Amino acid sequence: MPHTAGRHFLQIPGPSNVPDRILRAIDRPTIDHRGPEFQQLGLEVVSGMKRILNTAGAVVIYPSSGTGAWEAALMNTLSPNDKVLMYETGQFATLWKNLATRLGLQPEFIGGGWDGGVDAAAVEQRLREDKAHAIKALCVVHNETSTAVTSNIAEVRKAIDRAKHPALLMVDTISGLGSIEYRHDDWGVDVTIAGSQKGLMLPPGLAFNAISDKALAASKTAKMPRSYWSWEEMLGPIKNGYFPYTPATNLLYGLREAIAMLEEEGLDNVFRRHDRHAEATRRAVMTWGLDMPCKNETEYSSVLTAVRMPEGHSEIAFRKVVLDNFNMSLGSGLGKFTDKVFRIGHLGDFNDLTLMGALAGVEMGLALAKVPHHKGGVDAAMASLTENEIKSIT
Amino acid sequence: MPHTAGRHFLQIPGPSNVPDRILRAIDRPTIDHRGPEFQQLGLEVVSGMKRILNTAGAVVIYPSSGTGAWEAALMNTLSPNDKVLMYETGQFATLWKNLATRLGLQPEFIGGGWDGGVDAAAVEQRLREDKAHAIKALCVVHNETSTAVTSNIAEVRKAIDRAKHPALLMVDTISGLGSIEYRHDDWGVDVTIAGSQKGLMLPPGLAFNAISDKALAASKTAKMPRSYWSWEEMLGPIKNGYFPYTPATNLLYGLREAIAMLEEEGLDNVFRRHDRHAEATRRAVMTWGLDMPCKNETEYSSVLTAVRMPEGHSEIAFRKVVLDNFNMSLGSGLGKFTDKVFRIGHLGDFNDLTLMGALAGVEMGLALAKVPHHKGGVDAAMASLTENEIKSIT
Amino acid sequence: MPHTAGRHFLQIPGPSNVPDRILRAIDRPTIDHRGPEFQQLGLEVVSGMKRILNTAGAVVIYPSSGTGAWEAALMNTLSPNDKVLMYETGQFATLWKNLATRLGLQPEFIGGGWDGGVDAAAVEQRLREDKAHAIKALCVVHNETSTAVTSNIAEVRKAIDRAKHPALLMVDTISGLGSIEYRHDDWGVDVTIAGSQKGLMLPPGLAFNAISDKALAASKTAKMPRSYWSWEEMLGPIKNGYFPYTPATNLLYGLREAIAMLEEEGLDNVFRRHDRHAEATRRAVMTWGLDMPCKNETEYSSVLTAVRMPEGHSEIAFRKVVLDNFNMSLGSGLGKFTDKVFRIGHLGDFNDLTLMGALAGVEMGLALAKVPHHKGGVDAAMASLTENEIKSIT
Amino acid sequence: MPHTAGRHFLQIPGPSNVPDRILRAIDRPTIDHRGPEFQQLGLEVVSGMKRILNTAGAVVIYPSSGTGAWEAALMNTLSPNDKVLMYETGQFATLWKNLATRLGLQPEFIGGGWDGGVDAAAVEQRLREDKAHAIKALCVVHNETSTAVTSNIAEVRKAIDRAKHPALLMVDTISGLGSIEYRHDDWGVDVTIAGSQKGLMLPPGLAFNAISDKALAASKTAKMPRSYWSWEEMLGPIKNGYFPYTPATNLLYGLREAIAMLEEEGLDNVFRRHDRHAEATRRAVMTWGLDMPCKNETEYSSVLTAVRMPEGHSEIAFRKVVLDNFNMSLGSGLGKFTDKVFRIGHLGDFNDLTLMGALAGVEMGLALAKVPHHKGGVDAAMASLTENEIKSIT
Repeated sequence: MPHTAGRHFLQIPGPSNVPDRILRAIDRPTIDHRGPEFQQLGLEVVSGMKRILNTAGAVVIYPSSGTGAWEAALMNTLSPNDKVLMYETGQFATLWKNLATRLGLQPEFIGGGWDGGVDAAAVEQRLREDKAHAIKALCVVHNETSTAVTSNIAEVRKAIDRAKHPALLMVDTISGLGSIEYRHDDWGVDVTIAGSQKGLMLPPGLAFNAISDKALAASKTAKMPRSYWSWEEMLGPIKNGYFPYTPATNLLYGLREAIAMLEEEGLDNVFRRHDRHAEATRRAVMTWGLDMPCKNETEYSSVLTAVRMPEGHSEIAFRKVVLDNFNMSLGSGLGKFTDKVFRIGHLGDFNDLTLMGALAGVEMGLALAKVPHHKGGVDAAMASLTENEIKSIT
Repeated sequence: MPHTAGRHFLQIPGPSNVPDRILRAIDRPTIDHRGPEFQQLGLEVVSGMKRILNTAGAVVIYPSSGTGAWEAALMNTLSPNDKVLMYETGQFATLWKNLATRLGLQPEFIGGGWDGGVDAAAVEQRLREDKAHAIKALCVVHNETSTAVTSNIAEVRKAIDRAKHPALLMVDTISGLGSIEYRHDDWGVDVTIAGSQKGLMLPPGLAFNAISDKALAASKTAKMPRSYWSWEEMLGPIKNGYFPYTPATNLLYGLREAIAMLEEEGLDNVFRRHDRHAEATRRAVMTWGLDMPCKNETEYSSVLTAVRMPEGHSEIAFRKVVLDNFNMSLGSGLGKFTDKVFRIGHLGDFNDLTLMGALAGVEMGLALAKVPHHKGGVDAAMASLTENEIKSIT
Repeated sequence: MPHTAGRHFLQIPGPSNVPDRILRAIDRPTIDHRGPEFQQLGLEVVSGMKRILNTAGAVVIYPSSGTGAWEAALMNTLSPNDKVLMYETGQFATLWKNLATRLGLQPEFIGGGWDGGVDAAAVEQRLREDKAHAIKALCVVHNETSTAVTSNIAEVRKAIDRAKHPALLMVDTISGLGSIEYRHDDWGVDVTIAGSQKGLMLPPGLAFNAISDKALAASKTAKMPRSYWSWEEMLGPIKNGYFPYTPATNLLYGLREAIAMLEEEGLDNVFRRHDRHAEATRRAVMTWGLDMPCKNETEYSSVLTAVRMPEGHSEIAFRKVVLDNFNMSLGSGLGKFTDKVFRIGHLGDFNDLTLMGALAGVEMGLALAKVPHHKGGVDAAMASLTENEIKSIT
Repeated sequence: MPHTAGRHFLQIPGPSNVPDRILRAIDRPTIDHRGPEFQQLGLEVVSGMKRILNTAGAVVIYPSSGTGAWEAALMNTLSPNDKVLMYETGQFATLWKNLATRLGLQPEFIGGGWDGGVDAAAVEQRLREDKAHAIKALCVVHNETSTAVTSNIAEVRKAIDRAKHPALLMVDTISGLGSIEYRHDDWGVDVTIAGSQKGLMLPPGLAFNAISDKALAASKTAKMPRSYWSWEEMLGPIKNGYFPYTPATNLLYGLREAIAMLEEEGLDNVFRRHDRHAEATRRAVMTWGLDMPCKNETEYSSVLTAVRMPEGHSEIAFRKVVLDNFNMSLGSGLGKFTDKVFRIGHLGDFNDLTLMGALAGVEMGLALAKVPHHKGGVDAAMASLTENEIKSIT
C-alpha cells in the first residue's frame, strides 16, 4: 500500500487502537513457554486478569478470538440438546445464539427490539415459567456493540435470584471489559466471556473465561465434547503459570503491559474517561439531529455510539466517504441494521483530541456525503468536554 | 527480570526464534478487519499458505494454537463415536489421540516404539483388516518432535491406496511445515494440520488446516458439533479475504512477512539449510557418544535432534545447567522420555553460527553437568558444515 | 511516567510526529558501516536526498542536529573574521547569527520586524553598497518557525544577481524541506541546510548540506578550522556510500524509509496537503479573532501557524493548560515572542483528523484558560477542509 | 536485500549488537524536547552517564559520532596553534592526531609500535623536557581498537603528575566505556571522550565529554571557534535536563535503557564478562597459532582481539569468506594493519554462546580460506569458558 499521510483513525468498536507500549511489548523474542521466565509471565497475567474481572475465582486464557470464549463457555458447562435462554439485545446476541444452535444446543431467544438492554423482568418471568428447570443457562451480552447498549447485569442476577432458578448466568463482556465497570463476583456471574482487542487495548488473539465455582461444578458433568476449550485441561497448568498447549506468548507480553497501563491510570479513571467521551459523542449526535437506536438513557454504552442514518441514506456509502476522505474506519451496521446504522467507537487507548478528530471526521463526512444534518455537533462535543473537564494527565 | 547479557538461545523445537522482520511486521497498528486493507492482507496470506502447503485446495487459518487445528480437523470431518486410526510415533501422536478421546471419538492406536516413523506396512495391514470401513480417518504426525523423527507421508498414502480404504488421511505437520518438504496435494493428504511457531518463524497464535475435496465432502455430513472450528463458516468469508470472526490481525501481518521471507530464500534452500544443520548436529551427538532415539537414518528429522542422556543422568538437571550458565533453552524429554531425552531445535530462522553457539552450549553443559561424553562434538559439527559448505548468503 | 490514555498530540513545529513505518525501520539491528549492505544504504539515502533537495550537486549527511549543519555551512566556506550578511526573519535567524558570531565571523544583521520574510530589495540594496565585496555570504532562513513565515528564496537569488554580488547564498530550510517546495539548483542556492526531524518525519539526529560547485570551490580556500564538518573529508567516502566516521546508521534506515514515503505520496501532493492544512488552521485562528505575526499573506508558512495571545494573556500558561488537559504540545513563543506567541505545527506525517483534533484542543484550551476569543474556529477549519476537499487517500 | 536466514553476527569492535530492549526503547514517538517529560529524560541520562563515567563533574551529550566528541574536547580547551602531545597507540590515535592537525593545532606524536599501550615513562620524559609548558594537552586512547590494546590511564596520570606538568589529560574511551573499567575522576582525567555504539550498546549517534574543573577553567580562555561543541552553551541547559539545540531524543530513550541495563547487570559484572570472553578468545587465537599485535599481556583489550594473518594471506579476502559463508562481520585491518590484521569484537550485549558462534565462524573461515592454522581454537575457548565459569544469569 502506498503511504497515506498521518495516522489512521480506527474508530470501529474494536479492535481498538493498540497503544505503542503494548505493540512494543509484543515486539520481543518469543520465549520457552515451559521455562521459568514464562512461568512468571503466566502467573502475572492470570492474577492481573482476576483483578480486571473483579473475581477471586478461576480465569482461563485462550489463544483465540472472543468467539472462542463464547464457545468455551457453552462447551464446558452444557450437554448436547441443553436448553439455554438468550436475550436478543442485537446482532452479537444473535450470533451467540446461532453458535449455540450450531453446537447442538437448544437456545431460546427472548426477542428484543434492538433498542435497549436485557429486560430483567422478562427474564424473571421466563425463568419462573420454567418450573422444571429445563433451562440450564442464561446468556446475555453486557455491552452490545451492534446497538451501543449496555445491559445492567446486576439486575439480571437479581431477576434470576428472584425466580429462584438454578440456570448459570453467562455474560459476554467482550466489548465492555476494561472500558466500563464489570464485576464478575459481585454480580454473581457464572461464566464471563472476554476478549483482548477492545478495552484491553491488545490486538485480537486472546480470549478469556472467568468461572464461578458453580460453573466449575457444572463442568464436571457437562457432556459437550471439548479439549481445546476444556477448563479442566487448562486449570491445572494455569495454577503454575503454564498452559496445556502452546500459548500466544507474544500477545501475553502485551496483556501484561495492558494490565499495567489500566492499573496505572486506575480502572475508575478509565471508566470515567469512557463515560465522558460517550457523553460528548452523544451531544454531537443529538446536535446533528440524528437518532440513536438505544431508547433508554441509562443503557447508553460508554464504549461506542450507534447512529441511525436518515431514511434514504446509506451508512455503507457514508462510511466509504469517511474512509476515502478522512482515513477513518467507522463501525458498520450489523444484521438488521445493515446500511442503516453506523457506529463510532470511543474505547480503549483514547483521549479528548482523538475523539474530536473522529467527530470532526463524522461531521465533515456527513457534509461531503450530503446526509441531512444540523451543523454544530463538534462544537457541542467540545462544550461537553470542557464542562466535564477532567485532567487527562494527573 | 534483570538484564541478562546477550541474546537468549531458544533452541527448543518451537517456538523457534522469531526474526526481527516478522516481529517488526507484527508491531504495527491493528486495522479494521472488515475494511479493504485487511481484505488484501487476507487474500495474500491465504494464497501464500497454499503455496507453502503445496495445495490448490482450501486452506483455513485459525486464531489458535496448533492444538486447535488438531481439534478442527477431527470436528469438521467426523461424527461422535467415529473410529480413527492413529499411529504412536511419540508424545505428540499420543496427545492427539488423547484429544480425540476427549472429543468422544474412538481412536485406535498402532503402538510404536518411539524409535521411528509411521510403519506404512502396519497401517496397510490394519486398514485391510477393516473390511467394514469402520475407520473413518488415519491420523499421523509428519514430524514427531518428541523423538525427532520424520515419517514418510507419501508412503503412508500409498499404503492406504493399496488397502483401498476410504479413510481420510490427516497429517500433523505443525513442526515440519516451512522446515522440511511438505506436499499436501501430491501426497494425497485430506487434512493437514499446521501451526505458526515453528518453520513459519512466527510467534504462536495461528493454526492452519489444508483441506482436500474429499475432506470437505465429509464435513457436509459430519456430526461433531462445531462453530469456531467450522470450515463451512470459515470458507465463505475467506474466499474474499475475510474471516467469520475477528482474526488475529497482527499475527497475520507477521505471516505475510514470513511467507515473503521463505520465498525470498526459496523453499528448497530452506529445506537444504535445515538438512545441513541437522547433519552437523548429529555428527556432534555421535562424537559425544550419545544416543538418539531414532533408529532409522532415513527418518532423522531435520527440524530437531533428540539426544538420550546416559543412564543415571537427568536431562532436567542438564538443561537447567545449560539455561543457568549459557542462557539457552533446550527441549525437554516428553512423555516416556521425561528426564531421559533432551532435544536440540535447529529450525526456523537459523544459521551456521547460531547452530555452533548452540552446540558449544551443549558440549560445555555436558562438561559442567558432569555428563559422561567424548569431547570433539563441536569440532565434528564444524567439519560437517565446512564439508557441506553452502553459501548461506547468495 | 504513568500511562496517559491515547496518543500525545505533538503539534510543535518539529520534531514532527514520526510515523510508525519510520520508527520500525529504525528499530533494526545496526550493521557494519564498512560492509556491502551499508554501502547500498549509503548510496540510496544520498541519491534520495538529492531528489528531495532538487539538486544534482553534492549532498552530505551529518550525524548531528540541524544546528550542526548551520555550523558546517559556515565552517566549510568562510575564513576567520569574514563578513556575512544575515536577515532577521525571527528567532532562528537570530540564533544562526549568534552562532556565526561565536565562530569568529562578522555577521551583519538586516533587521526585520518579525512580521514577514526576507526583503529581497533590502538585500539587493545592501549588496550593491558592498562594492568591495567584503560580504562573503548571505544567510537566510527559508521557513522561519518563530514567526511562521516562509521567505521567497527565488526572489532573494534574483536580488543577489541584480546586485552582481559574488556572495554565497546559504539557505536554512531545516523546517521547510519535505513540507514546502524547495529547489536547491533552480533557486541558485549555494549551501542548503536541512535537518531530519521536520518534514522528513524522522527523529532528530541527522543534518544535511547541499552544496553548489561555487560553494565547493570556496571551501578549497576557506580557512575556518574543521574536521567533523569538513565537506572534503565527507565527499570522498560518500561517493561510494560510506562515511569518514561512524554514521548514525539506524537513523539512516529511517531516512531511507522517509524518502520512500515522500515519493510514494508524491512531493507535490505532500506540499498541497501542507497548504491545505495551513489554510484551514488560519481560518480557525481568524475566526477566534486572534492575530498572526505574519503580515503578508503570500508569506504565510504552510508548516506551522503562529498565533499572538491577546494582550495580558500568557502563552506559557495557555500551553500548560493545553498540555495538562489535552495531552498536546504546542510550540512556545521564542525570543522576543516569549510568552506572547504560541505556535501550532501542522507538518510532516499529518492528516485532516489529527489537525481537527489539534485545533479542537486549541479552542477548548482557549476556553479553559479564559483567553478571550470567538467560538467557531473549529467549524471554520472544517468548512475550509471540506471546501478544499482532496482525497487524502488516492 | 533478500532474506538471509538467522541473525547476522556483528563482531566488529563497534557498533556492537544493539539489544532488543534498547531498540524497542528507541522505537517510540519523539517528544517535545522543551517539555516536562523530556526534562526528566534529560536529567536521568546525564546523571546516569556520570555514574557510568565515574565522575561527579560535568558531562555533556552531543548528537554526533564519537569523532565529534574528539573535536569538542580540543575545540573547547585549546587555542589556534596550541601544541598537544599525542601518543601513537595505533590508527585511532593517528586519526585523532590528523583531526587536531586539520583544526589548526600542533600535535606532536610520540611514536609507538602499534604493539602496546601508552608508555607512561616516555610521556613523563617528554613532559619534563617541555619546561616552558608549551604542551597544552596530552591526548591518549584508552582502548585502541586498531591494535586491541588497553592503556593504563592511571599510570599516565601519575606520569604527568611526576613531571609536574599542567597539560590537560584527554582520554578517548569511545570503545572502552561500558566494557572495561573507566574512572574519570579517580584517574584525574580532564576530558573524557566517549560514544554510544560500543559498550553502551546503542546505535551510533551520541557522543560524550566528561569535563574536569580544570578543563572547564581552560575553556573560559580557549580561543578555538566553537558553537555546536561549546560546553558553555551546553552546560547551562543541561543542568535543567535540556539541550541548547534539538537533541537526538530517540537515541536518548535508548541511552536511558542502556544505563538501566548496565546497572541491572552491575558494571563490575559487565567488566568481568568482557574479561572472560577476551580470555577465551585469546586462547582460541593462540591455539590456532596466530599472532596478536599486542606484546604486553597486561595490555590485552577485553573489548576485542586483533589477529595477525600469516604472511602472504589477506585479511580482506578472509573476512569476505566469513561474511559470505557465515553471515558474520569481522573488523578490518586499519592503517598500517590494512590487509594484515583482522579483529574480533566481543563487546557490549554479548554472551558465551554468541562468542562461541563467532569463534566457530573464524575457525571455519580459516579452513575455507585455506589460511594455515591449527585446529582446536574453539575447543580451547570452550575450555577457557568452563574453567572460568560464571553464571551468566544470576
